[in-house]
Amino acid sequence: MERLRVGILGFGNLGRGAAAAVSQSPDMALAGIFTRRPPEQVAAEAGGMPVCPASLLEEGGPPVDVLLLCGGSAGDLPRQSPRYAGRFHIVDSFDTHARAPEHFAAVDAAARRGGRAAVICAGWDPGLFSVLRALALAALPRGESHTFWGEGVSQGHSEAVRRLPGVLDARAYTVPIPAALEAARAGEGAELTPGSMHRRVCYVALEEGAEPEAVRRAIVTMPHYFADYDTTVHFVTREELARDHSGLPHGGLVLRTGRTGRGEAHRASLEFRLRLDSNPEFTGGVLAACARAAWRLGQAGEYGCKTLLDIPPALLLPFEQGEAEYWKLI
Amino acid sequence: MERLRVGILGFGNLGRGAAAAVSQSPDMALAGIFTRRPPEQVAAEAGGMPVCPASLLEEGGPPVDVLLLCGGSAGDLPRQSPRYAGRFHIVDSFDTHARAPEHFAAVDAAARRGGRAAVICAGWDPGLFSVLRALALAALPRGESHTFWGEGVSQGHSEAVRRLPGVLDARAYTVPIPAALEAARAGEGAELTPGSMHRRVCYVALEEGAEPEAVRRAIVTMPHYFADYDTTVHFVTREELARDHSGLPHGGLVLRTGRTGRGEAHRASLEFRLRLDSNPEFTGGVLAACARAAWRLGQAGEYGCKTLLDIPPALLLPFEQGEAEYWKLI
Repeated sequence: MERLRVGILGFGNLGRGAAAAVSQSPDMALAGIFTRRPPEQVAAEAGGMPVCPASLLEEGGPPVDVLLLCGGSAGDLPRQSPRYAGRFHIVDSFDTHARAPEHFAAVDAAARRGGRAAVICAGWDPGLFSVLRALALAALPRGESHTFWGEGVSQGHSEAVRRLPGVLDARAYTVPIPAALEAARAGEGAELTPGSMHRRVCYVALEEGAEPEAVRRAIVTMPHYFADYDTTVHFVTREELARDHSGLPHGGLVLRTGRTGRGEAHRASLEFRLRLDSNPEFTGGVLAACARAAWRLGQAGEYGCKTLLDIPPALLLPFEQGEAEYWKLI
Repeated sequence: MERLRVGILGFGNLGRGAAAAVSQSPDMALAGIFTRRPPEQVAAEAGGMPVCPASLLEEGGPPVDVLLLCGGSAGDLPRQSPRYAGRFHIVDSFDTHARAPEHFAAVDAAARRGGRAAVICAGWDPGLFSVLRALALAALPRGESHTFWGEGVSQGHSEAVRRLPGVLDARAYTVPIPAALEAARAGEGAELTPGSMHRRVCYVALEEGAEPEAVRRAIVTMPHYFADYDTTVHFVTREELARDHSGLPHGGLVLRTGRTGRGEAHRASLEFRLRLDSNPEFTGGVLAACARAAWRLGQAGEYGCKTLLDIPPALLLPFEQGEAEYWKLI
């Protein structure tokens, strides 16, 4: 494979993680970091990596084989992915599970029209966890599956707290509940819900004069985000938040337990566990691996949108089917 | 999908596991169990499932969409898989890692000539573990991977002991060494070898008059199988062997630890663990899932041989891309 010229749109936490992964992949070259911010501001953060205004993606920019879209699922990707899928092979980490089908349809239409390959929902969940859930279900149809998240920082929940009046800054952690994990492992998890599997712990720095109890109540009653969970709120200073909660660790577990053969006697269980000191750096690594898949699909004329469920794992690898490295994995 | 007519060649432990899995898959029908033994003998074991002589695979048998080859990797599959790959879409569980490339080449040539799709090396290792090793390497290139097997019965090693003079029957267990597992988890496993990661425990029933010490020595010095391992041999009666060691449990672990981002500060680890009361029943379930993939590849005209690394995970599932069940996995 020639060195793949990979562009990155967006230079937040995820974009930085993706840039590090691309820079460290011997089969890739970083074509450019494309940004909607003033390029000179981003260049200061990018430590010598090439930075261009996003507008150059439309015309006149450096050549890009695959574009990694590193924006957010709420505001950015629903517009950006269909827009750029008509012009580049793209990869995104769209993670709003409920809206994935409509996102897929929009990206698929654009990519087919443009004769491009697109990979969406890439990352660890959705992404690797999706593949694990599929493999586990296929191999062990008589059983039950559960996904646990954490312990780690939920960026979406942190953001939801930060938007509340009176909140200066905040971090929300998702923490799996050990008893629920044991029930799932024992195959007795049929009644489990996200709210009985996880609790949430928030660290909040208040604005001056804000009323702690009012903020606490606004958090723990927030629908979808916290209302269904056992939620603890700790108030800390801005300095404590920066000192003790600046990392973005995360992780989780896909678990399936069930029975094999004809009776109930033989149990089987699969468990996939991920532990990450830096969620965006690992997710950036998955995006970079998916750049290979998008490129290979495009070269094979397989245009349109795919998720990791639709992609042969070998397409993610920095070598080809049949090479010695391939057989080492078998 | 119409009900897939799945044939099974060979009715040992694996064939029985595959037959159970096929019978329990609502999208499959068991076309027949094909055997080289007297069919009436197999019919007695098959509890009402249709049994035919293997010769009917050549001509005159019931229609078969996909054939699962459930013989052994040493004696059966190197002949059977290329032979039947020219006539049927096939799946096999060939597991002699070192000979996989030549097996692939032979099956690939036959399947292409016949216009058929073949999936080889299906099972959990090779198979699911191969996929996990590939995903882990792709997502976390800066790291080290390790595969642990056990605790469980190694059928190949049991068979190697049974072939020794003086041995009536035997079971060999593979047992991971906890300190090695901890080293691998800590990212300090660069020096690990299979022999420092596992020990072996054999339970042996001797023929009358056999000399225990001679048998013990023959086992622990056997090249490839036991010589590189800390091996313990227990002598038991045939009755004890039947009572305490009749099951075929197995399992294992694929583990990768490494670093993300630019420095050494951020660690990441992936761990996939499998625990099986019945190795052949679970493996049979993987073969059944791969029957769907072989069929779909064949329908798409993608003839030739593939391993699980070359197959989109969605092809293993009992529903189609884009259905509600598919999106639940994302």
